[in-house]
Amino acid sequence: MEIIENISFDNLDVILKRPGIEAEHLDGTIKNIIQRVMTSGDEALKELTKKFDQVILDDLLVSRQEIEASSLNVSTQQKTAIRKAQANIELFHSRQKKETLKVETMPGVNCWRKSVPIQKVGLYIPGGTAPLFSTVLMLGIPAKIAGCKEIVLCTPPDINGDIHPAILYTAQLVGIDTIIKVGGAQAIAALAYGTESVPRVDKIFGPGNQYVTKAKQMVNLSGTAIDMPAGPSEVAVIADGAADAEFIAADLLSQAEHGEDSQVILISTSHELVTKVNSAMDEQLKLLPRKEVAINCLSNSKAILASDMQEVIAISNA
Amino acid sequence: MEIIENISFDNLDVILKRPGIEAEHLDGTIKNIIQRVMTSGDEALKELTKKFDQVILDDLLVSRQEIEASSLNVSTQQKTAIRKAQANIELFHSRQKKETLKVETMPGVNCWRKSVPIQKVGLYIPGGTAPLFSTVLMLGIPAKIAGCKEIVLCTPPDINGDIHPAILYTAQLVGIDTIIKVGGAQAIAALAYGTESVPRVDKIFGPGNQYVTKAKQMVNLSGTAIDMPAGPSEVAVIADGAADAEFIAADLLSQAEHGEDSQVILISTSHELVTKVNSAMDEQLKLLPRKEVAINCLSNSKAILASDMQEVIAISNA
Repeated sequence: MEIIENISFDNLDVILKRPGIEAEHLDGTIKNIIQRVMTSGDEALKELTKKFDQVILDDLLVSRQEIEASSLNVSTQQKTAIRKAQANIELFHSRQKKETLKVETMPGVNCWRKSVPIQKVGLYIPGGTAPLFSTVLMLGIPAKIAGCKEIVLCTPPDINGDIHPAILYTAQLVGIDTIIKVGGAQAIAALAYGTESVPRVDKIFGPGNQYVTKAKQMVNLSGTAIDMPAGPSEVAVIADGAADAEFIAADLLSQAEHGEDSQVILISTSHELVTKVNSAMDEQLKLLPRKEVAINCLSNSKAILASDMQEVIAISNA
Repeated sequence: MEIIENISFDNLDVILKRPGIEAEHLDGTIKNIIQRVMTSGDEALKELTKKFDQVILDDLLVSRQEIEASSLNVSTQQKTAIRKAQANIELFHSRQKKETLKVETMPGVNCWRKSVPIQKVGLYIPGGTAPLFSTVLMLGIPAKIAGCKEIVLCTPPDINGDIHPAILYTAQLVGIDTIIKVGGAQAIAALAYGTESVPRVDKIFGPGNQYVTKAKQMVNLSGTAIDMPAGPSEVAVIADGAADAEFIAADLLSQAEHGEDSQVILISTSHELVTKVNSAMDEQLKLLPRKEVAINCLSNSKAILASDMQEVIAISNA
């Protein structure tokens, strides 16, 4: 990771520039996929799944048997970890329920804001190299607590037409019954417009690659709500000389391995610490299964040295 | 307003179809405006203001003298009304301040959500036929209560290069000092990218016509946050036979007059009431300065008859 010293606040914009998030060149491709799904429904989803996921599916909907079988293919240790996370996330979000507060602004004029659940929500869970069952928990649990009536989960199948058992196990644990084997822009189009197998939803949540993000932005222009365009992963770590370099290296790598367009930033007052973190990352990288991705990300990433904590905070805010 | 009877829930989608909100045909025009503002800053803003608002401006920034003079050109009655609204809106929003709630999910692991003010915000206030000083209150007061450090207000000048005194009076009352004479897509571009006169902001709020909305959606794709794409105005009124037809007519017209693409819906169990509302609207329309706009909107609008309140609620939810 490049070490930047003696920074000037005049060119901070340049130093802190994010990897590009514009993807205008995808407009045509994604528009075409959305159009195909709108026109041909499930048939288009199956064709696109064959093309992008290299698998021919008879059924897009995950069957009850597949969901039940998933429990056998998740280790007891992993189940325990998932249940612990579930309990923590439930505890945290259940506290966010707010009482409706009425304000009488003038005699007899009562005003209030009231939160009501969105009836139908779609959750997009990326597939690929890392099964994001954590995302199933973090999206599914708040939706359940809020009281959303219909929760539809889309996630791409593997080359055998299966969904990772940890995703299925977590989904049924949270209480999500409708799981569809479809990923990419076609999944977002299906959630926005509905097909024979995929119910149309009011709002789509979840992270995804640039195709998914672009599709979310496009359906958003036509009236389907989205959580946000999930950009590349980012993390900034602030640390002084007393911090543990091993921990910081692990935290930075945990986001760096998300994608080659991710960006991780370390801001520190200690040159010694920054050097130690760089060495620790070199060591940890050797053991990382997603080493190649992380190495490419680190070429976008920076360790910035500041003269004092005041300056560290100013850089972080910028 | 067309009266729809014996509705079927199968074709409710068709009955409730909104006037189109897609504006893809504007993509090129707006992209060009944004590009010009990014390249030429104030010079582009002045050229575009000359083109669209038919006025040549020396200064884009409203001067301190102009702000002070505005007070003389607002009637005492109107000032009293604005101050009353200010007090009510302040009371309502000040109650929305939330304590940060910490949750200890596991021993020693404290989690919380904390709201922090957005440092720089831009408020767009439409000009044209109706000076929306109400919007100045409704956007400016929450920004002040939240603690936003810099609040920039953009609003188009009239043909003399002036801003309506009620807007200036309200802005200074709320505590907004930076007021820029610029409207349309060019104002949104200026707020998103900054010019010599217009500070770049982090998030843009406020309603606008289809050009403003399209520009907000476009800058949002490149990293400037927006509140939402403010679509055409809408209102749905639910009323049984005991309701006051005059009041309902006034409520419907208050939104119908916003724009020809607005849509107003009345849902009722009483044929008699619906007929009375239609007559009351005919009478009230005669006195309405924005009659033409309202009449065009009413051609998109519908009175829907339902058999009972259960059905009324189902239609409203749909």
